[in-house]
Amino acid sequence: MSPAIFVDALQDELQSIQYGQDPPELYDPIRYIMSLGGKRMRPLLTLMATYLFTDDWQKAVRPALGVEVFHNFTLMHDDIMDQAPLRRGNPTVHEKWNGNTAILSGDVMLVNAYQLLLSIESDKLKLALERFSRTAAEVCEGQQMDMNFETRWNVTEAEYIDMIRLKTSVLLGYALELGGLIAGADAETTRHLYEGGMNIGVGFQLKDDLLDVYGDPAKFGKQVGGDIIANKKTFLLIEALQQAQGSIRDELTAWLTRTTFDKAEKVQAVTAIYDQLGIRQQTEVRINEYFARGFANFNEVNAIPDRKDLLIQFTRQLVERES
Amino acid sequence: MSPAIFVDALQDELQSIQYGQDPPELYDPIRYIMSLGGKRMRPLLTLMATYLFTDDWQKAVRPALGVEVFHNFTLMHDDIMDQAPLRRGNPTVHEKWNGNTAILSGDVMLVNAYQLLLSIESDKLKLALERFSRTAAEVCEGQQMDMNFETRWNVTEAEYIDMIRLKTSVLLGYALELGGLIAGADAETTRHLYEGGMNIGVGFQLKDDLLDVYGDPAKFGKQVGGDIIANKKTFLLIEALQQAQGSIRDELTAWLTRTTFDKAEKVQAVTAIYDQLGIRQQTEVRINEYFARGFANFNEVNAIPDRKDLLIQFTRQLVERES
Repeated sequence: MSPAIFVDALQDELQSIQYGQDPPELYDPIRYIMSLGGKRMRPLLTLMATYLFTDDWQKAVRPALGVEVFHNFTLMHDDIMDQAPLRRGNPTVHEKWNGNTAILSGDVMLVNAYQLLLSIESDKLKLALERFSRTAAEVCEGQQMDMNFETRWNVTEAEYIDMIRLKTSVLLGYALELGGLIAGADAETTRHLYEGGMNIGVGFQLKDDLLDVYGDPAKFGKQVGGDIIANKKTFLLIEALQQAQGSIRDELTAWLTRTTFDKAEKVQAVTAIYDQLGIRQQTEVRINEYFARGFANFNEVNAIPDRKDLLIQFTRQLVERES
Repeated sequence: MSPAIFVDALQDELQSIQYGQDPPELYDPIRYIMSLGGKRMRPLLTLMATYLFTDDWQKAVRPALGVEVFHNFTLMHDDIMDQAPLRRGNPTVHEKWNGNTAILSGDVMLVNAYQLLLSIESDKLKLALERFSRTAAEVCEGQQMDMNFETRWNVTEAEYIDMIRLKTSVLLGYALELGGLIAGADAETTRHLYEGGMNIGVGFQLKDDLLDVYGDPAKFGKQVGGDIIANKKTFLLIEALQQAQGSIRDELTAWLTRTTFDKAEKVQAVTAIYDQLGIRQQTEVRINEYFARGFANFNEVNAIPDRKDLLIQFTRQLVERES
């Protein structure tokens, strides 16, 4: 079994989904955002988790895409809230159409996500939807916390980890848990899958923060230092704000409050502050901690022999990514 | 059995719902909009429909509130799209907080609606949620059509009826269908309930349009003529635009395009045009047609003797309302 088979199955099913036709203003933005691609990481994790316990992984394809549609719904609404002009290099829905259309199309996408999840077998449906709904609410909680942090300078590491756990990691956890649920795995097993996905997810998000500053410009897809330029409250900035004292603190604060500056100069200066404080190493320690916890969770999962390799290889790719 | 018992049961359960606590910016707006009241028409219809077939109507209370939470979610998001300052005489959520909060709180409310519906017994859950999801998507379709109509002057009666059917009536139909489903009524019976609710709903919305112009100012809660002042594309205006010829058409068009005018004068003039064209009578004919169809649908429902009276009395109140 190769991951390409899962990827193809997801792609075929994605093509066949009928979101709806009329009025076109409502449904075109859904087809648009779903066509922008992305790694389809979440539904792939669901299929891999189902395959851990059964050959009949195909029954997980449609519910897995429910998780992907939900994820894209959150992107559509987050982009309105963040006033983001671009998503995966293309105009965001609220830019290409308008804000109202992005609100309403997103609303239908959330309904569509539930519709796809309704293909889960009846005896597993209630639990799968209860867990999905809890997760969906938590993702919204994380987004609200993220918005609240924008106007705060005293965010703690614990608060930040909690925010990224809710905003991004619980959905990775749920994607794996769902795969196990569909395969009929027991509660302890699905809990290990959920925790594993969540821990990998936190590590993944911290690595995102790290790569923005210390990524190889030749391999990193985006502009290195973009978060520094935008004063984005990443793990690195939060640590620096908690630890910097005296003149280093003054310099950091100066860079954060300056309204006109040379971008390259700011990136270089703030990176130098991170270097002085040892933020890179501290972040790497945390990332490795979360990844190690995630793999330990996967280790506890009692699967068909050899099948965990596929999941672990795929996860290792995510963990070792440089872009 | 008196409707007051249903009202009390809904109120008690509403008090007990834990939408969530943290972050407060996410959950306070939900408690706020749910506290603004309203007639709780939809969940009352669900309870009455369950009671048609069983004494155990209490098991429908929580799912019924799922329909009410969904309805209030649509109000929260519609108010953003319509830039409405007031809802039931109080500031709208996007005014009291801000647009982003209204988007995100609304999103969680849609999830909350599903969570409440997940209290439906397992053997009925899948069908109930499939029908709910279809209905929810249709409500969004209706809202998009309504927005599209704002910039069109050639909306036909058929298009308008289709829009109000989707935007408001299908949810009344679903509220009744859900009550039947929960009670274990067969598919033909739940279809009659759905159709009945939908037909009453269309009549109800047309009556809303009529009362805005021909309501008794002493009984009508809002300003009579508010729709005329705002050029709102109601059934009456659409009919007038389709039927007016010659000088009457010119006069109507003039009033619709004028940017400064005396409000009372405009209301009087447009009402006079409606009178000349016989719009009031035509609208009343349509209203009575839809109400008659709705009651005919209810007539087909095979319920415990005498129990239909409660539903029919309640619906008759809705139909005969003057505000």
